[in-house]
Amino acid sequence: MTWQPPEIPPLAKQLVPELQARIDAKTKPPGSLGRLEELALALGMMQATTEPALRNGRVLVFAGDHGLAEEGVSPFPQAVTVQMVANFLAGGAAINVFARQQGLTFQVIDAGVAADLPPHPQLLACKVRPGTRNARREPALTRDEARQCLEQGARLALDLAADGADAFLPGEMGIGNTSASALLCSALLGIPLDDCVGSGAGHDRAGLARKLTILKDVQARHAGASAQDPIGALAAFGGCEIGMMAGAMIGAASQRLLIVVDGFIATAAVVLAERLRPGVLSYCVFSHVSTESGHAKVLRALGVRPLLDLGLRLGEGTGAVLAWPLLVSATAFLREMATFESAGVSEKANPTSA
Amino acid sequence: MTWQPPEIPPLAKQLVPELQARIDAKTKPPGSLGRLEELALALGMMQATTEPALRNGRVLVFAGDHGLAEEGVSPFPQAVTVQMVANFLAGGAAINVFARQQGLTFQVIDAGVAADLPPHPQLLACKVRPGTRNARREPALTRDEARQCLEQGARLALDLAADGADAFLPGEMGIGNTSASALLCSALLGIPLDDCVGSGAGHDRAGLARKLTILKDVQARHAGASAQDPIGALAAFGGCEIGMMAGAMIGAASQRLLIVVDGFIATAAVVLAERLRPGVLSYCVFSHVSTESGHAKVLRALGVRPLLDLGLRLGEGTGAVLAWPLLVSATAFLREMATFESAGVSEKANPTSA
Repeated sequence: MTWQPPEIPPLAKQLVPELQARIDAKTKPPGSLGRLEELALALGMMQATTEPALRNGRVLVFAGDHGLAEEGVSPFPQAVTVQMVANFLAGGAAINVFARQQGLTFQVIDAGVAADLPPHPQLLACKVRPGTRNARREPALTRDEARQCLEQGARLALDLAADGADAFLPGEMGIGNTSASALLCSALLGIPLDDCVGSGAGHDRAGLARKLTILKDVQARHAGASAQDPIGALAAFGGCEIGMMAGAMIGAASQRLLIVVDGFIATAAVVLAERLRPGVLSYCVFSHVSTESGHAKVLRALGVRPLLDLGLRLGEGTGAVLAWPLLVSATAFLREMATFESAGVSEKANPTSA
Repeated sequence: MTWQPPEIPPLAKQLVPELQARIDAKTKPPGSLGRLEELALALGMMQATTEPALRNGRVLVFAGDHGLAEEGVSPFPQAVTVQMVANFLAGGAAINVFARQQGLTFQVIDAGVAADLPPHPQLLACKVRPGTRNARREPALTRDEARQCLEQGARLALDLAADGADAFLPGEMGIGNTSASALLCSALLGIPLDDCVGSGAGHDRAGLARKLTILKDVQARHAGASAQDPIGALAAFGGCEIGMMAGAMIGAASQRLLIVVDGFIATAAVVLAERLRPGVLSYCVFSHVSTESGHAKVLRALGVRPLLDLGLRLGEGTGAVLAWPLLVSATAFLREMATFESAGVSEKANPTSA
């Protein structure tokens, strides 16, 4: 069974001069909106228009369990994944609060939770398997399961696009998924595992040392996992939610949707997606740098700068949703601000290169 | 004529244990919302409640002209101040776009624009004088004018509070006001002038050198200006909009309003306000660090950390309004998130110190 990931259209770079001229005509010193001006330019290139807009952002939280959790890589019990899914569906989690505040549509994807979940209008049943296998003993997923995750994710994103979405804000929930993300980032980017492993949901120093020992064991067990075979790396380490998020990122980029990337786990999904379909990265905005210690290193390896640095490490897509108003602001100033000409405002008396 | 600035109530520090317990009971790893948790704590102490809320933020843009502009300290002509006021009132400036996006009420204060401004429903006529005097030749304001600025500002803030505002987001417009701000910060904080002077609205290197030479001249002319006499420093350097903003900050803090501080000029007003009434600072959140080179140094001298670092240098209150949704998020998670207990989510299996 093969899966052909959808093609990623190139950014509309030919619009840069016109976009830049529009930005510079606005009543403000040139460049004075800093990163918002860069975002306006990037969004114009993504949407292939000089009037980019963000009117329909969609939050999808991908949930999945990890067999590796039984090794004690997280200080929280695995049951928290399903408990948090219930919390999402009841509207009580941080991501619910922030998505409501921003008026963003919110759904939960059961990518691979280790429990049967009762139907709910905001829950999409896409379970590939009830939790991955324990990667310390065997591959977390078969290659076919890994491919299913990617394919289902891509299909979800195509559905979003067909439904009029212009931005995709993925989040995740899965006890053990900073471990899988660390293993994936190390394998796919060639970063030492020590640099990718952090405290996750809240290890103390001893817990962190234990986690690192276990993950080195897992890495040794799957020494062949590498950037040359991204699907093999996903199969080795899991998880379902990471794979499905990566597939959805590919699908979103194929439809010119902005992808607002949350923290370490979402960034691991970008790494996987970019290996599978180079070009996904150009549709990503990295919302924040997390305190999960691997995140800053992976962002640096990708050559990207996050928007926020607020000491967040919650996941669920919370960072992406917190950054959302800045992205809307970037499109709003470009669309709504007066120009020097329209407002009758004088430009610099002595034009300089500033 | 004397003016007694209103008293600043102390933060409600006795609520910290209860606030922290409420924060830690929410369904998230402890500390995982980073700065938002710090903000929730700070807002609770400011509002003296364990249920802080931000429902009524007010943007006031203080406009004033600077006699020093005739020396060429800005690359923009002085006329831009009045042109931008017209742009604000027509709704076409960046601050209008962002305030509309956030649903924030917006008003312009004529603190000292060098022109007669026609009445407008969103314009408050508080002109102390039509632009300051040229501080290179004489004091920008008399002591009495300086006091009037402060007093009118405080009155404006008391009116906001009486009208139900819970947050004050000051902005400013005034060609030449990075110069006055640099002079004020240097005098009031004892920071060398070289460290306080930046490119403002967009000087090139030669323009910046010229600006610094002029400002050193002004500083020498008013060598007596110091932290011991903040009103004297305001009189020496101006401007009306900075003084009125400082007075409004004192008034806002006296009513337990959150003050969301924008860039370099708003920060200079905080410095002045804090010298006049220690305690104002504890009601301030610094929205961002601007690329205006003095800003980071003054923030460091104040011992505060800005929320955003987006390369902004526009003023008008834009940084404050861009940070506003984060502040709302900080109150929203505290009010709306479920607790571990209410949601039936397990806490850490092995409690640690993390």
